[in-house]
Amino acid sequence: MPADHDTAALAAVKRFLDGEGASLEGTGNQRLEPTLDGDTKVFQLTIDKIKHRIDAVKEPVGALGYNGTWPAPRIEVVEGDRVRAVFKSNLDESTGVHFHGQRLPNNMDGVPHITQNPIMPGDSFTYEFVARTPGSHMYHSHHNATDQVGRGLLGAFIVQPRNPADRYERKYGVSQDIIWISNDSLGGFTINGRGFPATSPIVAKLGDTIAIRFMNEGNMMHPWHLHGMPMRVVARDGYALGSAEFTCDTLGVNPGERWDVIIDCEEPGAWAFHCHILQHAEARDGMFGMVTALVIQEAPTAEGARFTTASSSAGSIRTAAVGAGSTSLLCKVPGVG
Amino acid sequence: MPADHDTAALAAVKRFLDGEGASLEGTGNQRLEPTLDGDTKVFQLTIDKIKHRIDAVKEPVGALGYNGTWPAPRIEVVEGDRVRAVFKSNLDESTGVHFHGQRLPNNMDGVPHITQNPIMPGDSFTYEFVARTPGSHMYHSHHNATDQVGRGLLGAFIVQPRNPADRYERKYGVSQDIIWISNDSLGGFTINGRGFPATSPIVAKLGDTIAIRFMNEGNMMHPWHLHGMPMRVVARDGYALGSAEFTCDTLGVNPGERWDVIIDCEEPGAWAFHCHILQHAEARDGMFGMVTALVIQEAPTAEGARFTTASSSAGSIRTAAVGAGSTSLLCKVPGVG
Amino acid sequence: MPADHDTAALAAVKRFLDGEGASLEGTGNQRLEPTLDGDTKVFQLTIDKIKHRIDAVKEPVGALGYNGTWPAPRIEVVEGDRVRAVFKSNLDESTGVHFHGQRLPNNMDGVPHITQNPIMPGDSFTYEFVARTPGSHMYHSHHNATDQVGRGLLGAFIVQPRNPADRYERKYGVSQDIIWISNDSLGGFTINGRGFPATSPIVAKLGDTIAIRFMNEGNMMHPWHLHGMPMRVVARDGYALGSAEFTCDTLGVNPGERWDVIIDCEEPGAWAFHCHILQHAEARDGMFGMVTALVIQEAPTAEGARFTTASSSAGSIRTAAVGAGSTSLLCKVPGVG
Repeated sequence: MPADHDTAALAAVKRFLDGEGASLEGTGNQRLEPTLDGDTKVFQLTIDKIKHRIDAVKEPVGALGYNGTWPAPRIEVVEGDRVRAVFKSNLDESTGVHFHGQRLPNNMDGVPHITQNPIMPGDSFTYEFVARTPGSHMYHSHHNATDQVGRGLLGAFIVQPRNPADRYERKYGVSQDIIWISNDSLGGFTINGRGFPATSPIVAKLGDTIAIRFMNEGNMMHPWHLHGMPMRVVARDGYALGSAEFTCDTLGVNPGERWDVIIDCEEPGAWAFHCHILQHAEARDGMFGMVTALVIQEAPTAEGARFTTASSSAGSIRTAAVGAGSTSLLCKVPGVG
Repeated sequence: MPADHDTAALAAVKRFLDGEGASLEGTGNQRLEPTLDGDTKVFQLTIDKIKHRIDAVKEPVGALGYNGTWPAPRIEVVEGDRVRAVFKSNLDESTGVHFHGQRLPNNMDGVPHITQNPIMPGDSFTYEFVARTPGSHMYHSHHNATDQVGRGLLGAFIVQPRNPADRYERKYGVSQDIIWISNDSLGGFTINGRGFPATSPIVAKLGDTIAIRFMNEGNMMHPWHLHGMPMRVVARDGYALGSAEFTCDTLGVNPGERWDVIIDCEEPGAWAFHCHILQHAEARDGMFGMVTALVIQEAPTAEGARFTTASSSAGSIRTAAVGAGSTSLLCKVPGVG
Repeated sequence: MPADHDTAALAAVKRFLDGEGASLEGTGNQRLEPTLDGDTKVFQLTIDKIKHRIDAVKEPVGALGYNGTWPAPRIEVVEGDRVRAVFKSNLDESTGVHFHGQRLPNNMDGVPHITQNPIMPGDSFTYEFVARTPGSHMYHSHHNATDQVGRGLLGAFIVQPRNPADRYERKYGVSQDIIWISNDSLGGFTINGRGFPATSPIVAKLGDTIAIRFMNEGNMMHPWHLHGMPMRVVARDGYALGSAEFTCDTLGVNPGERWDVIIDCEEPGAWAFHCHILQHAEARDGMFGMVTALVIQEAPTAEGARFTTASSSAGSIRTAAVGAGSTSLLCKVPGVG
């Protein structure tokens, strides 16, 4: 039994280190570029039935997506922007789109039967508003939502503060601004639409500062635990915490909440980063679901990577040590895996 | 299937807009007036088996109530008041009453077998104490409590600060001070003893400031999400947060906790207000359970309501637009519904 | 039915007052003294299959323990200490040990297949690091952890601040510094490895200040509710809250989180202290699981205990009134019980 567990657990880790997440198509959270109509930023989205892969092994699930991905594209605007988001439904069921966290004209709030009629199959609906609420927000279905959000109709809506000095690049000097959307319905426990080992590690360089925007689109609270160093929690639902800021290593995020954290990448290595409800992260056959890693790479030196391998079977430390060549995904080192 | 969903979902919304909640008898949270014995405020309560309606359609459930309602009457006193609450049990089972959140003489704490004997069928028990802990508190059964609180033995106990300047009317200028007790046992997911569409909307005028006191008497965390504008969170369990205050649009409330929020009613319209664990709020046949609305009415103008109807099938916007005639419940507009 | 409930409920309370928890062997959280190797503090631990009692009545469960107890011994060091913890596994399955909350060299992080190979049956592994992160932390299995932590591989790792003025004895004048680890897997709902009525009450003297370090090693959020007086929440995951400090009487603790609270023992008596998810604390046959009490004793006077008995059947008040003779456990009074 222990041997079987170890074999299965190691195999999953190897798949993760081999970059399974990066090998899959349909990556979510890709920035959606608007077109301009005068000074209005226009975003075109379709609402589709899709086949979505939770990982490379499981059969694709029959899901829903905006522009074909789960999570949906990241829509990012600046406070004060006039936004027009046109949604064309290719579904065979009715739907509605809610911009969660925004101040909106009531008839743009996206609650069918309360503020609009449902968007029927084949129809379009245009949401138009001024982005007044800066911070980390979301857009998702608000119609038969237990089902439709569970199947993937969810995405990040980021409103950058009007004052550039308040944006995380300037305010905290972050080199990465990362969306982290969890879900726990179709496909089980997922981060950005993938379950371990197909989750994507976060790769940073020693000395970097990064921001993570946790968004819970699921129906359970998840306490996110980072190994190795703490998180400074700076905003909740898009509102700066100010004197209510705190530091922690485990952060419970309830459904519908968004929490922004800043991480100083001070400790080199591969750090587990997972939900601490252990049933969401590890089972008899090893880690699964809500697990990823923060990999902090030391700068390469003349004589090569200084960071030494702790475990010849794992490979991750060697991977972490490979240097600053890639900051987008856990780089695959020739000979590792 | 989508058509069926929409038909059922619309029917539920119509029932809500038609004021189903207001049509039911046995409304909870009604202020209980004391009599005076010297300077002691005396509250008389019975503990009863009741029939309680979650909504107008479902069969009444066999519940329990103080003075016949679920939630119980709102007991409100001032910090420093001497309080005497006499409970006469008409149950056929034993019970005990705990004032949750108060500093009490130990023998007034209401934990049978620890601080008192159970209150037997037909007996009375008198709780007497000085209300020393201002803020939002509760009273409920502390005996076989999973069952008895689940069936409705719960109510709000509000202790106004001794200094009038610290009360929400004065401190924040609130025009309404609203109790919001959730439960999730008998009768399913409820707000103040009702499930959508029989929940009562909150109706305010544009420019109003209101207070909501969230109290969780259930056994699950519920993250309350308000559309359209944020909540300023000012107190926890009756204690002012001070420098730990924060602003959010989704607030997780754990069982036993009380959170006080202030809402500036700045955005006109009918705003959904619901638990963001979607299974507590929406299913295949539309919204149910932990859903209500904050309706913010614009002042009527000479030429009539300025707020225009977004959806002819919904009616809510017209309702919201009708003006400041009613502040107690979603006013029913002739011809709507 | 009510009579049956009362009989069973009273019997459980009597067992609690009779000190059932203190009668059991294998008490966890006992301070583990290190040996010194130069200036390195060396802690020797075994990892064992154990038989563990949740209470005195239920059959012992087949559990796991470090040094034979659940929770494990309390390891306490000072910020800046060099720590060596040697774990010898006597299990017949592989494992790994993670110091949750510490900054560590990556190869000391205890995540098998990521930072080290699993510790195989019969093998040892040495974790060596400088304790850099002061505060309330934990150590537990990070391998097949849903199962292994669920069965008891968990303990408290306390790092006292380097500056003595920052330690709770000095900073808040606490007379007791209490570990409170919850779990909710094997053996049901437990505090420090025991379920009511075998949980240990906290006994303090009127006027004492005490610290409690809540640590959640389970897989559900638990909102801890103290009767009679509030808790001042001063640290989260070991980090001082500073201006984000708050006061409450019900504190939700998510899995993996640690919260430090300070309690001013201002109200004499026996105060229930329990999880407010009522199904974790009370059922048809009375209280069980996540229930204990804070007993605050008045100083004895010449004429004897001033605190009077509220209920002749309970005995707890008499117990609480007996004076300051014992501060370690609810003292058993001759003739009571």
